[in-house]
Amino acid sequence: MDNKEKNGNPMRALSGHFYAVGVGPGSPDLLTLRAAELIRSADVVIAPRSRKSDVSLALQTVVDFVDGQEIIDHVFAMKRDVESTIKSWAKVAQLVGRRCRAGQAVVQITIGDPLIYSTSCYLLALVRENLANDCVHVVPGISAFQASACLLDEALTMQEDRMTVMPATDLTRVEEALDHCETLVLFKAGKRIAELADLLDRRGLLGKARVVCYAEQPDRQFVSTDLREAANARHGYMATVLVHIGRQGWPDREASSQ
Amino acid sequence: MDNKEKNGNPMRALSGHFYAVGVGPGSPDLLTLRAAELIRSADVVIAPRSRKSDVSLALQTVVDFVDGQEIIDHVFAMKRDVESTIKSWAKVAQLVGRRCRAGQAVVQITIGDPLIYSTSCYLLALVRENLANDCVHVVPGISAFQASACLLDEALTMQEDRMTVMPATDLTRVEEALDHCETLVLFKAGKRIAELADLLDRRGLLGKARVVCYAEQPDRQFVSTDLREAANARHGYMATVLVHIGRQGWPDREASSQ
Repeated sequence: MDNKEKNGNPMRALSGHFYAVGVGPGSPDLLTLRAAELIRSADVVIAPRSRKSDVSLALQTVVDFVDGQEIIDHVFAMKRDVESTIKSWAKVAQLVGRRCRAGQAVVQITIGDPLIYSTSCYLLALVRENLANDCVHVVPGISAFQASACLLDEALTMQEDRMTVMPATDLTRVEEALDHCETLVLFKAGKRIAELADLLDRRGLLGKARVVCYAEQPDRQFVSTDLREAANARHGYMATVLVHIGRQGWPDREASSQ
Repeated sequence: MDNKEKNGNPMRALSGHFYAVGVGPGSPDLLTLRAAELIRSADVVIAPRSRKSDVSLALQTVVDFVDGQEIIDHVFAMKRDVESTIKSWAKVAQLVGRRCRAGQAVVQITIGDPLIYSTSCYLLALVRENLANDCVHVVPGISAFQASACLLDEALTMQEDRMTVMPATDLTRVEEALDHCETLVLFKAGKRIAELADLLDRRGLLGKARVVCYAEQPDRQFVSTDLREAANARHGYMATVLVHIGRQGWPDREASSQ
């Protein structure tokens, strides 16, 4: 490839702009080049950390790209309560507004993808009240379900398959979902694995289910094709269950011309 | 952060191993660091290209990381026919087997994520017949729906939301899906945008739908919150429609303790 054209350099963080940046599931080399460069070129990096954690998993993931930026450690309660969640992030949004108006480039890092079950969704909505829309940016990240599927080496969707992604919190809704997709991805399954195993067994799907805990997180990653085994092992919060319910192939060749 | 521990270097391609690597939607800086390093360190890069295209979009995306590797341009027909698809990829799988047994490191690049509606799914299944399982690896990539949501700056899922991802080919199935999720992502919507607009209008959801064509592909990206406008513009194959049907919040605070 002698006459190849270079595609140019990754996006850099601009003065006065805010970026919600997904850093992927936990392995530093699953950051995108864009995420790495935005973090490197930021003035301020906001790293969320749950009240139970000593360190921010997002910050651990990006440590290679941090050198001199101001780090703001935002501790939030992992309560399933909208009012306290918004209150907690409103303070951060005000800070983002102040810093950006003062000309700083501000990045919030988040594990996974900022728009898939992420605290970034709250922060983004609140930042938009404090900052012009064209100064607010979102950078996608590899989500845990993608990393989990890759570890298992099993297709998520082919041809006409439907994939549904949802939390594992309400088993009635989980059971309903089994009837409306070919691949079901269940997040936050840690506390529900034994109950899920019972449900899937009853539906004849136990052998089609896999669980991945802490996908791509060094030292604590756990992959199992046996939900009962995984339930006994008690693997905590960040567990993703994938259920391969079936396949929806292409219609007959004659009927199709796309 | 003086005493920070470095996380180490990105994964490199090993002699005798095969990697199906997602390169993201088209912008070079949306590759992961892992994808970039695997491509850089590979002996052989297999780049798929549809019969209608002059160049491989995947190869264009990674051109900055190609320097001296052997490039194998695999032309495939975009037919919705399993038999010819498998036949086409079986030849590539045999080549992968031969090259890996001869000690080469082989990477197949694919736009988006290798396990989400990707030709990699066929190749991976066939390569596993030719190569030991622990020599076969899959590396996730940013999918078009993630890039599209980021361009729109709208949450895909929050709290208890369900997201369903499916092709837009069968409108009966699309309409059914509207009743079983909060966010519906429709791939391959290019030819169906006008019909989708009619369906969503009838269901009172037209204002909740957005379309992104060629997300993160330089020069031809198109974003619209007006499906009727997008239908008139005829934006081709790689169109993703996102429908924000509603939100499923957390249950009342009292009922929840997770």
